Amino acid sequence: MTASGGRFITLEGGEGAGKSTQVRQLAVRLAGCGLDVVQTREPGGTPGAEAIRQLLVTGEIGRWDAMTETLLHYAARRSHVEQTVKPALARGAWVVSDRFADSTMAYQGYAGSVGRDAIADLHRLVLGDFGPDLTLILDLPVEQGLQRAKSRPAAAGAAAEDRYERMGTAFHETLRHAFHDIAAREPQRCRIIDASGSPEAVADALWAAVAGRFDMTGGTSP
Amino acid sequence: MTASGGRFITLEGGEGAGKSTQVRQLAVRLAGCGLDVVQTREPGGTPGAEAIRQLLVTGEIGRWDAMTETLLHYAARRSHVEQTVKPALARGAWVVSDRFADSTMAYQGYAGSVGRDAIADLHRLVLGDFGPDLTLILDLPVEQGLQRAKSRPAAAGAAAEDRYERMGTAFHETLRHAFHDIAAREPQRCRIIDASGSPEAVADALWAAVAGRFDMTGGTSP
Repeated sequence: MTASGGRFITLEGGEGAGKSTQVRQLAVRLAGCGLDVVQTREPGGTPGAEAIRQLLVTGEIGRWDAMTETLLHYAARRSHVEQTVKPALARGAWVVSDRFADSTMAYQGYAGSVGRDAIADLHRLVLGDFGPDLTLILDLPVEQGLQRAKSRPAAAGAAAEDRYERMGTAFHETLRHAFHDIAAREPQRCRIIDASGSPEAVADALWAAVAGRFDMTGGTSP
Repeated sequence: MTASGGRFITLEGGEGAGKSTQVRQLAVRLAGCGLDVVQTREPGGTPGAEAIRQLLVTGEIGRWDAMTETLLHYAARRSHVEQTVKPALARGAWVVSDRFADSTMAYQGYAGSVGRDAIADLHRLVLGDFGPDLTLILDLPVEQGLQRAKSRPAAAGAAAEDRYERMGTAFHETLRHAFHDIAAREPQRCRIIDASGSPEAVADALWAAVAGRFDMTGGTSP
């Protein structure tokens, strides 16, 4: 491959799109190219941000209003970017994150009541113009995603991370539209990936997008 | 007394200034005037915000950078204002809060690295122009405050809420200056109260400030 220096790649999409699985697959393929790879997730990616995650993904749907959620996500994101993502990029690592700022824009900006301008203002205040080099949006019909999410086994002893899944179908339809709109507004950064196929087919489509974007010629399937 | 409708009163100041004691005293005196009084605190004041408080006041000093702290404080504040303060004011109650937005301005804006403009921008984004009717700033020399804070007994079984106290003396001197500067910039809203005397003397000084501001004639010492 020809790219030098670290790259920041994010995977986005609604519930049940297979992001966690695909982030792992992509990290393995990148490592197979001899790259230093950091696999991470949002909300999370630092001990502090994982603690904030627990406040966000468990409990009653009405526990937080959309603005409070947004602030918690950006608190976790700030910790993640400053303590994990930027240090990794600085040493030349490739960072692959399960969700990033587009999720806040979609969930609280498009589907929630905060509004897109307020989210954009907050992003600039907290992170300036920092953002991903490439964003892969896993896209599939809402019903299929929610069905997959419901059948996902919960970790033993862990609180079910299902606060968002329990919101209605209309909410998730708005999310899907939001991710399409985000991709349309930033075609250089974003790629929509059909996530309705087998995990292997989706992994191949993701890899084609990554290899195309970064002009990688050495990447082979693991 | 002549005032009608709810009022929002905040107590501010550095560590060990006696805010918690004085908030209780003030709430008792206001209730003695026949008012509906809500005594609350920040970070906190709702179940969600109290959970965020635990992330802020315990753990390592370097756990969060100043911007992350600021976002956590504003997440807790949004929850507090929307779910506790505004509903109380709407029904005509008087709300007395141990700390509010001036603490974030002092701790993260003046003494931390976030800067005053960013805190002001964030406040507008999250709360618009919502703020206290009266802010009482308890003022005393830094050494005296830290000494008092250190001798405060910890609640049985609770994690010590001493993350800020453990920051250096220079930090606390900056805080004291910050509160003076905030008061000088908003003399209509803020009153500096000498907190170096006995709890009874401080309570009397606070009461005089409240009664003067709201033209209360029925307030007698409990």
